Amino acid sequence: MKNSLLSTINNPADLRQLDEAQLPQVAQELRNFIIDIVSVKEGHLGASLGVVELTIALHYVFDTPNDLLIWDVGHQAYGHKILTGRRENFHTNRQLGGISGFPKRSESIYDAFGVGHSSTSISAALGMAIASNLKGDYDKQHIAVIGDASIASGMAFEGLNHAGVTDANLLVILNDNAIGIDPSVGALKKYLTAVKEGKNPRQNNMIKSLNFDYSGPIDGHDIFAVIKELKRLQKVKGPKFLHIITTKGKGLQQAEENQVKYHAPGKFDATTGEIHIKSEENLPSKYQDVFGLTVLDLAKKNEKIIGITPAMPSGSSLKFMMDALPKRAFDVGIAEQHAVTLAAGMATQGMIVFCNIYSTFLQRAYDQVIHDVALQNLPVIFCLDRAGLVGEDGATHHGVFDLAYLRCIPNMIIYSPLNEIGLQNILYTAQLGLSNPISIRYPRGRGVIADWQSVNFGNYEKIEIGKGICLQKGSKIAILSNGTIGNNVTLAIAKMQHPETIAHYDFSFVKPLDESLLHVIFTKFENIITLEDGVIKGGFGSGILDFASSCNYISKIKILGIPDEFIEQGTVDELQQYCKIDVKSLEILFSSY
Amino acid sequence: MKNSLLSTINNPADLRQLDEAQLPQVAQELRNFIIDIVSVKEGHLGASLGVVELTIALHYVFDTPNDLLIWDVGHQAYGHKILTGRRENFHTNRQLGGISGFPKRSESIYDAFGVGHSSTSISAALGMAIASNLKGDYDKQHIAVIGDASIASGMAFEGLNHAGVTDANLLVILNDNAIGIDPSVGALKKYLTAVKEGKNPRQNNMIKSLNFDYSGPIDGHDIFAVIKELKRLQKVKGPKFLHIITTKGKGLQQAEENQVKYHAPGKFDATTGEIHIKSEENLPSKYQDVFGLTVLDLAKKNEKIIGITPAMPSGSSLKFMMDALPKRAFDVGIAEQHAVTLAAGMATQGMIVFCNIYSTFLQRAYDQVIHDVALQNLPVIFCLDRAGLVGEDGATHHGVFDLAYLRCIPNMIIYSPLNEIGLQNILYTAQLGLSNPISIRYPRGRGVIADWQSVNFGNYEKIEIGKGICLQKGSKIAILSNGTIGNNVTLAIAKMQHPETIAHYDFSFVKPLDESLLHVIFTKFENIITLEDGVIKGGFGSGILDFASSCNYISKIKILGIPDEFIEQGTVDELQQYCKIDVKSLEILFSSY
Repeated sequence: MKNSLLSTINNPADLRQLDEAQLPQVAQELRNFIIDIVSVKEGHLGASLGVVELTIALHYVFDTPNDLLIWDVGHQAYGHKILTGRRENFHTNRQLGGISGFPKRSESIYDAFGVGHSSTSISAALGMAIASNLKGDYDKQHIAVIGDASIASGMAFEGLNHAGVTDANLLVILNDNAIGIDPSVGALKKYLTAVKEGKNPRQNNMIKSLNFDYSGPIDGHDIFAVIKELKRLQKVKGPKFLHIITTKGKGLQQAEENQVKYHAPGKFDATTGEIHIKSEENLPSKYQDVFGLTVLDLAKKNEKIIGITPAMPSGSSLKFMMDALPKRAFDVGIAEQHAVTLAAGMATQGMIVFCNIYSTFLQRAYDQVIHDVALQNLPVIFCLDRAGLVGEDGATHHGVFDLAYLRCIPNMIIYSPLNEIGLQNILYTAQLGLSNPISIRYPRGRGVIADWQSVNFGNYEKIEIGKGICLQKGSKIAILSNGTIGNNVTLAIAKMQHPETIAHYDFSFVKPLDESLLHVIFTKFENIITLEDGVIKGGFGSGILDFASSCNYISKIKILGIPDEFIEQGTVDELQQYCKIDVKSLEILFSSY
Repeated sequence: MKNSLLSTINNPADLRQLDEAQLPQVAQELRNFIIDIVSVKEGHLGASLGVVELTIALHYVFDTPNDLLIWDVGHQAYGHKILTGRRENFHTNRQLGGISGFPKRSESIYDAFGVGHSSTSISAALGMAIASNLKGDYDKQHIAVIGDASIASGMAFEGLNHAGVTDANLLVILNDNAIGIDPSVGALKKYLTAVKEGKNPRQNNMIKSLNFDYSGPIDGHDIFAVIKELKRLQKVKGPKFLHIITTKGKGLQQAEENQVKYHAPGKFDATTGEIHIKSEENLPSKYQDVFGLTVLDLAKKNEKIIGITPAMPSGSSLKFMMDALPKRAFDVGIAEQHAVTLAAGMATQGMIVFCNIYSTFLQRAYDQVIHDVALQNLPVIFCLDRAGLVGEDGATHHGVFDLAYLRCIPNMIIYSPLNEIGLQNILYTAQLGLSNPISIRYPRGRGVIADWQSVNFGNYEKIEIGKGICLQKGSKIAILSNGTIGNNVTLAIAKMQHPETIAHYDFSFVKPLDESLLHVIFTKFENIITLEDGVIKGGFGSGILDFASSCNYISKIKILGIPDEFIEQGTVDELQQYCKIDVKSLEILFSSY
């Protein structure tokens, strides 16, 4: 019986052969299939469980891939992948060479648009719908499925605002489960909750104000109701909006009850839902927790400190401060632009603002960093989590551009700590009061010091801005590293036959550069290697080239980092190997001199 | 009688000494003062005329600068500047060393937040308001004045969405005149028009849905009504929203009737409003018109071509195509994020999309360029208008970061034409079908070829992607220039005693670089100078350093461009002198070799 239907579905055309009455069984099998594989292979669970019925209904009713379907963000698209020819490959999800954790155009004709960052689906689907009209294809449908956390982002509003004055065949489906990765926030969420609870008279409808044909809210787990409404909407021309209510994690009790934890739970028991706890004894702390614990500790002592996160309280560990000091720590939702300018506004009033944004998402607020913070030289403290290669999330999420896009901004200090102590101490230093904005970037995952929390935590030392450090003296070549990737250098040197040939300098400050140390290095060494966990073009190494050129030094400089291509998913180790910045590659390179 | 009241107002405290009955006279005098000076000194006219009454009422009712007042964008803040101590300096508006055309924190304590780019005011004011609450100052008011074009931008929605769930003393004033620089667009504009016309029942209020205390719409030119409502709102705690209706250009008939033209009309007759027409005979075309005419011409022949502008149809000259081919040219409003992803969506369907965005505003869509376009390698054609130093608009508007922030993006082609012919031909080449996205950047203002339109327009030649050109051979040093600033090199060389010493190469392509030409150059020349109209850190010159370093060339390389600081306003010539990239500075430098 198990998978007796699902195993026959190799594409949506197969699905459409089934009777509507068989679809609940498909839903059950699809849910089990997702749970079985994700429980072992890991990945994003809750979102996909929540849209099983919607996924089946969409492919059942619409003529995919001719009708174009976009999943906003894409965490919820596992069912879609499984129904569109990737069932047998699904176990390779998020692995090197496997299928991507997100819809991706190059992977399947059913993935109409690559996603990963939120709130792009309406704009992309509208673009496709306008193109269809221009081609004279007035029957094609263009569907954007977007969650209530993502639709609150400004970009989604821009898409709705434009769509409402077009005659494009756009269907926006709001998948309203009241949660993104963390619970949704904001006035729109409050409004949607009131709508769900029947407190808003139907005529008072925001979406209708934007000129959409609104229907709902309907139960997104009632597959017959969803199909019926989709069939009706299929025949409606122009912009349409369907509001469905779902439960994130639907069908796995623990996932329904602990939606934050089961967003991406790691390995778990497929039957009970119990998460397999890894032993964490003696493991170094996560950089996220170093941030979260330190900022909370500092905030307890300094009442001017404020914390801001755009929708990542758990992921960033700002949650520690939000729980302890709720009036001074803010989750503003998926609103990076707002987060940055809010921070700037607070800074004008003398507040010390830690604005924590994943490196890849700060791209969303680039103009605000330049125009609202740096131009006014407001000392906002940007904490760029998930900097560098992030691993399994892949190309959409690597935080590899930040050094390049920040280095060109006047007034900005840029610091990448070598380890947990560096991170703790720069957070401490920043809140003492800087005259400039600072960007502090650190990677996802664990540090390198086993007992940071018990030994170092709270023993703050002020860092001199712009100071580099000689970690090891050497005779032949100088390695200049930025950030935690410098620990690879240390390990590589330790493996060498002649470690004494290698000098290693920690340039945690990409800006300002320690020019006096650089003069010492360039005077002494003919061969210099720079290393960063970021793109080679325009980053730390570029800064060293600038320096050398402006001072007419002629040492040979080799720049290591991320090459000029988008890096796919894999473990961080695998991706470092690909970029030749892993320990082994470094050892070989260093030994070749 | 003239200025008899205005001349006594040196700050808002003086204004508050007056009887309310005297304020209409102040309004009349303020309007005349603005018209008199802007008619001679140029600047932004219409927006400030439209808010004369509001400006007076705000400073009359609120306790500025203790209460904090933010003007979104800031085009409308001339009256504010004149009433807050800058009356006598107002004639220096937008000049080198003079006052800025926008509110600016370093200029006055009355300028609570520096502005220039749109839609930042709500976030900034909310940040200030939250800070006041944390400091225990619950009476202070924080006011954001925002236009109907700016409030339709996603960032403003993000600010409203957050504010609605706070108890911050935030007053958002919607200055609804149905126009930005060009007429407003979108579903929200349609909704606001319906509200104004009484077609929406008051209870169906979008702003109320976001949890704001909404009042209005009221006549923004009825100073007594505005004062009365502001006095009422002054006592209301929490987030409040006042909707006022104004007329852009109010008080100067021609400005009211031709609102687009009188946004920034240049010199005009203060009495009649008649614009002083400059003789344009024999002047080269504006790059904007080269773009507008060429894209229209190409679009007539290639039905896949689409044009997109976020709110700059007149400024970009996309208006030519919008007028002639309205179904294929879109003004999406102030929505750069949406514009880029809309373009990406269209490109997936085989459309050839020219997405024209001012360089400084593309910063707003940086993530979309990376994540939605470049990562999927969609051949969107970005046309970056107002690249490089823009002159009088100053620090907020210079388009100097683009080369640096784009160069680090994989798949992106970057081209800066040397002149009108280069621009025309790259537009032609791009629509023939590229396999990559391309960014084409060109400056504000006129080109260098007197008869481009009569002689060259339409004589298209395909450009080889990545090809550099030797403009002049030379013996001693090689100048590698990118874009129109290369014309300064030509002029500088022409002035030299020994022009034969200078070789000049046009590297219009920053990416991909013409490496075979570079090998020739680096093999021959010991001294190389790069020149770009963009920031030195990370731009074109950095690319040349990368190349030289990776090939172990040891020629001396000097990089010319914009230094690592924010450049203020002035004429382009003055600012080029400041950056030492003007003709004279180049001549002196070249002669020193």
